[in-house]
Amino acid sequence: MNIKYSLLLGFLGELSDRFTAYGQPRSVAERFALVADIPGVTGVEIVYPHDLADLGEVTAACAAHRLAIASVNLNVKKDRQFRDGSFTHRDPAVRAEAVAWMKRAMDTAADLGAEVVTCCPLNDGYDYAFEQDYARAWDWLLASIDEAAGHRDDVLVSLEYKPSEPRARMILDSAAKALLACHELGRANVGVTMDMGHALYAGESSAEAAALLARSGKLFLVHVNDNYRNWDWDLIAGSVNWWDLVELLYVVRKVDYRGWFAADVFPSRVPVVKAFGTTYKMMWAASRLIDAVGLSTISDLVAVGQPPQVLERLIDEMIPGFAEAYPELAAR
Amino acid sequence: MNIKYSLLLGFLGELSDRFTAYGQPRSVAERFALVADIPGVTGVEIVYPHDLADLGEVTAACAAHRLAIASVNLNVKKDRQFRDGSFTHRDPAVRAEAVAWMKRAMDTAADLGAEVVTCCPLNDGYDYAFEQDYARAWDWLLASIDEAAGHRDDVLVSLEYKPSEPRARMILDSAAKALLACHELGRANVGVTMDMGHALYAGESSAEAAALLARSGKLFLVHVNDNYRNWDWDLIAGSVNWWDLVELLYVVRKVDYRGWFAADVFPSRVPVVKAFGTTYKMMWAASRLIDAVGLSTISDLVAVGQPPQVLERLIDEMIPGFAEAYPELAAR
Amino acid sequence: MNIKYSLLLGFLGELSDRFTAYGQPRSVAERFALVADIPGVTGVEIVYPHDLADLGEVTAACAAHRLAIASVNLNVKKDRQFRDGSFTHRDPAVRAEAVAWMKRAMDTAADLGAEVVTCCPLNDGYDYAFEQDYARAWDWLLASIDEAAGHRDDVLVSLEYKPSEPRARMILDSAAKALLACHELGRANVGVTMDMGHALYAGESSAEAAALLARSGKLFLVHVNDNYRNWDWDLIAGSVNWWDLVELLYVVRKVDYRGWFAADVFPSRVPVVKAFGTTYKMMWAASRLIDAVGLSTISDLVAVGQPPQVLERLIDEMIPGFAEAYPELAAR
Amino acid sequence: MNIKYSLLLGFLGELSDRFTAYGQPRSVAERFALVADIPGVTGVEIVYPHDLADLGEVTAACAAHRLAIASVNLNVKKDRQFRDGSFTHRDPAVRAEAVAWMKRAMDTAADLGAEVVTCCPLNDGYDYAFEQDYARAWDWLLASIDEAAGHRDDVLVSLEYKPSEPRARMILDSAAKALLACHELGRANVGVTMDMGHALYAGESSAEAAALLARSGKLFLVHVNDNYRNWDWDLIAGSVNWWDLVELLYVVRKVDYRGWFAADVFPSRVPVVKAFGTTYKMMWAASRLIDAVGLSTISDLVAVGQPPQVLERLIDEMIPGFAEAYPELAAR
Repeated sequence: MNIKYSLLLGFLGELSDRFTAYGQPRSVAERFALVADIPGVTGVEIVYPHDLADLGEVTAACAAHRLAIASVNLNVKKDRQFRDGSFTHRDPAVRAEAVAWMKRAMDTAADLGAEVVTCCPLNDGYDYAFEQDYARAWDWLLASIDEAAGHRDDVLVSLEYKPSEPRARMILDSAAKALLACHELGRANVGVTMDMGHALYAGESSAEAAALLARSGKLFLVHVNDNYRNWDWDLIAGSVNWWDLVELLYVVRKVDYRGWFAADVFPSRVPVVKAFGTTYKMMWAASRLIDAVGLSTISDLVAVGQPPQVLERLIDEMIPGFAEAYPELAAR
Repeated sequence: MNIKYSLLLGFLGELSDRFTAYGQPRSVAERFALVADIPGVTGVEIVYPHDLADLGEVTAACAAHRLAIASVNLNVKKDRQFRDGSFTHRDPAVRAEAVAWMKRAMDTAADLGAEVVTCCPLNDGYDYAFEQDYARAWDWLLASIDEAAGHRDDVLVSLEYKPSEPRARMILDSAAKALLACHELGRANVGVTMDMGHALYAGESSAEAAALLARSGKLFLVHVNDNYRNWDWDLIAGSVNWWDLVELLYVVRKVDYRGWFAADVFPSRVPVVKAFGTTYKMMWAASRLIDAVGLSTISDLVAVGQPPQVLERLIDEMIPGFAEAYPELAAR
Repeated sequence: MNIKYSLLLGFLGELSDRFTAYGQPRSVAERFALVADIPGVTGVEIVYPHDLADLGEVTAACAAHRLAIASVNLNVKKDRQFRDGSFTHRDPAVRAEAVAWMKRAMDTAADLGAEVVTCCPLNDGYDYAFEQDYARAWDWLLASIDEAAGHRDDVLVSLEYKPSEPRARMILDSAAKALLACHELGRANVGVTMDMGHALYAGESSAEAAALLARSGKLFLVHVNDNYRNWDWDLIAGSVNWWDLVELLYVVRKVDYRGWFAADVFPSRVPVVKAFGTTYKMMWAASRLIDAVGLSTISDLVAVGQPPQVLERLIDEMIPGFAEAYPELAAR
Repeated sequence: MNIKYSLLLGFLGELSDRFTAYGQPRSVAERFALVADIPGVTGVEIVYPHDLADLGEVTAACAAHRLAIASVNLNVKKDRQFRDGSFTHRDPAVRAEAVAWMKRAMDTAADLGAEVVTCCPLNDGYDYAFEQDYARAWDWLLASIDEAAGHRDDVLVSLEYKPSEPRARMILDSAAKALLACHELGRANVGVTMDMGHALYAGESSAEAAALLARSGKLFLVHVNDNYRNWDWDLIAGSVNWWDLVELLYVVRKVDYRGWFAADVFPSRVPVVKAFGTTYKMMWAASRLIDAVGLSTISDLVAVGQPPQVLERLIDEMIPGFAEAYPELAAR
């Protein structure tokens, strides 16, 4: 399988959380240069507007490093005006501003040759009981996305769901909720970004999420990373949930997903090049494992519901020798 | 607010989990008789087919104790044939059987004067990676419900979602997923049972879940109980998450919900009459608290997003005296 | 009950998380001035070394606003040298530096009249499998604290446990682990800070944690805040888990806790004065509720294990009238 | 590595949870016979008293199938008298009964040649706030275990911790709490059973738990299984958290653990022989992978804290070829 691998360019610079700072400040050009040391990368996901002040610099860097703009990531959370919400902000002027940003992000994506604008509206949520008029917020979310997506139909608008952070609860919190929004909107160019880590800590199977989104033609983008199913730790993909990664790659191949896999890994205490390089290696290995066992072999066993048999086939490939060690049992 | 309070009749008999047994065997008639000691109850939710072998006995008990059949709970999980699934079972014969049971449950509900058949398809899910063809399972779920609900349109079919148990993952795992199914089916008589505890341990706000379901006219039934947001402990409602109960009652009143509140409380180590009685008292108290503060007062504060002010108003009603104790601060 | 209420002075200034910034920059003096608007506060918890560059300014502000230094919070996580750990850092020079900071923080506490230095070693943990030699890290933690605490015995060293953040796993992750450290160290001046929110998202009952720590004489400090048991949201205390707050206050009174309650609330989208004021009001109300029902009444019911009766007594105080509304049932 | 593999004999018979039944009734002899079809098993963990009514039958079955009694599992939860607790029951007569059962289980273990009696006191906990006097319960737990363990010192008493189920909270809920009990008791023959799944859903790293227990000489027994870190699903070991299994096996080898690995897998919808056979194959494969990479190679990388390098070494063994596919990057 050919994995179209990109990464979030923002993670190559300076980062911080509530307590500590990581990485170091790097210009857009410096971050592009760093990508060259990471295996497998052929595109980047770049933040609008913060990293797109100078389009010429970006297109030059793309050309110099033979990288595509895989996706444009609309950030309507960092700026103070969006602190309490973007597409669902109580102030209609702020909602309009978020919509305007989305339209400009779509134009920029078109200019850069990116098919997708992805957006995770992190501040659209709530922290407390009695904070939100939930139905109204949902209406506002739909209305905002509807208006923005109607701006042009040659660019895909991909909604990234996430259960929480920085809000204790995000409105767009699950694959099903995002798909529900797509159904209610009924626009061909509105779909979903499935971030593997978000799915895992939402209590989902990322493979199921991908399968259901693809069933409706709505799997527009995949973000890869990992965690302990309790928080968006943005760890190296496959470093915790190896089988989930293998199954996700199995599913996307089954549904013939042709989009990008963008690494959304937070390189806090691991060298940045390693964080994204090991992520690629994990995906490469998982994909190779599927090839070795065979897509149809796995598919046939899934069809009849024999998960131990699938696991044993995968293990036989990964660490051969069990049948030889226990011949009398393997024969059964 | 007039709370139409019912309870799950099955919980008044003998119960068990993986390790221990609770309660004691009681006939349907004995369980009906026990209800008389529980304040507020005016209806029961009864299991089809297991507690409906003798319809005459049931209608007689209803009459004797002045209780309505609030809802019929279709159980397609206990019998061995449904061990690996019901509406999504790999065997089409089992799927057909589940559909047939649903149709008969609908007929029985009509006979008993109950508007709703509720069903939580607990075995329709998966435990392992590589166990399910997710899109196929979703197709089967929709097809089964579609056929069953088409049987007659004067009985509501209410799908109860739950994240897990006994399967590690249930297919119908969230309010959004259940609402998505409703949208895909497009049938007026298919809606959703929102079990407060299921919502809480799905990581949802039960108030948001109710609001979104009601927005689409799909809030058919409410189950009340409580837990620590990590498992379906089926504790006394309001015993853990008091504010969630208050907010839920606020939301259902705002949307003018006219259905039942069925107590789904597992009386493992608490006297059974107490478990359901305290649940009712909690709901009564929460409802009265809303009355005391005023629906429009709360609504106005929610509209502008001032959760601490709402909480302070509620506290002032619950435990008055703060303004007198700290007059200089209250004046600000 | 007289609640000795303090707050974390740092939260009155500028704050940020991974995505958004909150509050505004304020000098130490400005933050002290802001405290005057918050009801109930009689002390502050102040960060060493970052807010203690000018001891004279601090003591003058304390005097001007009649505030005590309730506790000194040693921060060995913000500075780049501690990014990968403090008391368990692989480099012995960094461990020595953390110990030296602790000693100086103890001296400063003594100078300021604070009994306790509290420290939450957030960077001492791990993100990945195969990252830590666990037994070695535990040895280093004990050795570092042992040396630091031995510096002087007139200042208490209070270890604040937390399951995670910013590390995916913190070594000192539970009340039991912190108490285990105390037992292994065997020093009278080493104890534990129980942060209510940390306890809740560690899966603990904060009341049980307080009771077990107090049983060994190790409950040195209490931090109050709230969350949804899934993350350290640092919400207004009692805004989610009202009963947990009531039970915690019941337990600390039973064990005659005489220390401070420091509000560790992150005022992201709520006015800062409100965040800490409502927290105090919640504690005041919970305490008053216990008084109204009576400590011995609760205690007697706990002794025989009748949780519904306790809840009903509390509800009767909070929202009276049930017995009048349902006289025939209340009589039973 | 030679893995001493046993399994819980009880799981080979009929099982049930709150909703569904699994397996089929099988006598002790039938269950012993079934073990012969499972690779790697050389011992069994057997329940006292329920499966030990006829010691002669058991010893005969052991001899016939060349199986050892690896451990005796004391069940003080199933019988009605223990419904509300065993070692911490409010009634001193029940506590005495639990202690008496433990003593007899120890005698039986000695008779059967088993070194360890393991016990998970599942009913010793609480469901609600205001249900437990926590310090008193802890005192009772220690006193009961102290008396029981003092019965004879040639049999190990191993306390199995678990966060919950069937109680919403168990008192002995974490590795640290169990180790704390050991420290307070100070008895050489009291230690801890680390159930991998319990550790995972307690939010622990099972490798860290094993390392800390072994550091104090208290790792008496290991139970293997797997889950999604949210509940004790008792799935096939390694089927979810492959790396955790590999790291656990690495740690137990490092600390030279010589005890048993008992499979505690709930074969609900997977053939029972497969459930335990695949579990063994997973352990065999994980162990072989460690051999292939080399214990000291891993240990050296852990010592300097390079988790991506360890993962890459493991991946290189599992799915070779990356260096050949990306030679220019591998060379860096």
